[in-house]
Amino acid sequence: MIYAHILFGLENTLYDADLQLSMARMNAVKAMIAEGLPLNHESLYMMLEQIVKEYGVHFPKHFDILVERLGVKYSPRIIAAGVLAYRETSNVYLKPYPDVQSTLLALRDRGIKLYLITSGPPVKQWQKILSLNLGHIFHDVFIEERSDIMGGPSKDFLKNVLDQLSVNRNSILAVSGLENEINVFKESSIPTVLVMRGASKYSAEKAKHAATYVVESLDKILKIV
Amino acid sequence: MIYAHILFGLENTLYDADLQLSMARMNAVKAMIAEGLPLNHESLYMMLEQIVKEYGVHFPKHFDILVERLGVKYSPRIIAAGVLAYRETSNVYLKPYPDVQSTLLALRDRGIKLYLITSGPPVKQWQKILSLNLGHIFHDVFIEERSDIMGGPSKDFLKNVLDQLSVNRNSILAVSGLENEINVFKESSIPTVLVMRGASKYSAEKAKHAATYVVESLDKILKIV
Repeated sequence: MIYAHILFGLENTLYDADLQLSMARMNAVKAMIAEGLPLNHESLYMMLEQIVKEYGVHFPKHFDILVERLGVKYSPRIIAAGVLAYRETSNVYLKPYPDVQSTLLALRDRGIKLYLITSGPPVKQWQKILSLNLGHIFHDVFIEERSDIMGGPSKDFLKNVLDQLSVNRNSILAVSGLENEINVFKESSIPTVLVMRGASKYSAEKAKHAATYVVESLDKILKIV
Repeated sequence: MIYAHILFGLENTLYDADLQLSMARMNAVKAMIAEGLPLNHESLYMMLEQIVKEYGVHFPKHFDILVERLGVKYSPRIIAAGVLAYRETSNVYLKPYPDVQSTLLALRDRGIKLYLITSGPPVKQWQKILSLNLGHIFHDVFIEERSDIMGGPSKDFLKNVLDQLSVNRNSILAVSGLENEINVFKESSIPTVLVMRGASKYSAEKAKHAATYVVESLDKILKIV
């Protein structure tokens, strides 16, 4: 066995976070249009993306800003319609990729230790992990408390986790579907697996030469370890 | 036609809010126990009820306080489990009583104007109304912005609504399943219908003589108007 410890990213690695977010936003703007917002859904979607970029992904009042920016009178009804559609759609798409559970169990059966490493508000990240039904499958979960970004630990946090694990770095493999996450692992000289799927696939293409291994689906890592 | 305008309460009138809240809290503490909280679910449920009473129903961190009060180390995992179970259970029980839609449509068909009057954070109240699929059925919705209590407008807010409606008070009927709501309507000299159902039925019993009419189910108001 070459790799006795595997660190997994969460978003775009274990589930399709890009698809989840874009579908949730699209259904939210459609629901808000049905309750009276002007403009077409493509334009509103683009405005919403812009607001998320400006205020950060964890800001709780994106829809309020959207309504305000359109010059529409404050309407709790329109905002509530957006929130509801967003939540319902998010839940529908918060499902692990179909090969996640079987791959993780197969790795555990081989005696490999499995870790999840992610960043965001801890309670929210745990809501994702528990909704995905992955709460018990990892030997440990490391969450960096951050409110500014989604996905990917900082270099310092990763260093801290590696210190806690206290094992030979060559026995650690890091698996992620996010380009920035792969880069953080690479900076810490950990062999990486880039999972090439999800909506961000093409931007990840650039990072292809940065990863030690590139796979099309998670179950392919069974042939690597 | 005696009553041309009907004001409806929301909680315990159009859906069973007491049942929804108690089921959501019970499933939340059970999920938190499964993730490591000590004590049995009856004791935790009672502690949670006490915290809700102290901090108000709209306070966003009841579970954090519960974990703290138990002397358990802060755990985003345990809190996330509680939040998830609470939300899922709430959604399941956020359904109108079976006779609500048909009764409201029958009243509309008779040319009666239907109004909803409630209090709470407006976006949250609208989320309930839209989830219940009652967004389009009322001719107007009046929400008093309050963060301290659940259900029931203040006397001042009701007066304001009545001024806006600007109709003869004898042509208005108020329908509610909440004792405090019935009392507010009564103070404004509006004929009232107390709907005797839901978990708070027995405390409402006391208010029986206060209401102009008492019915066992919403569809019975078709015989009153």
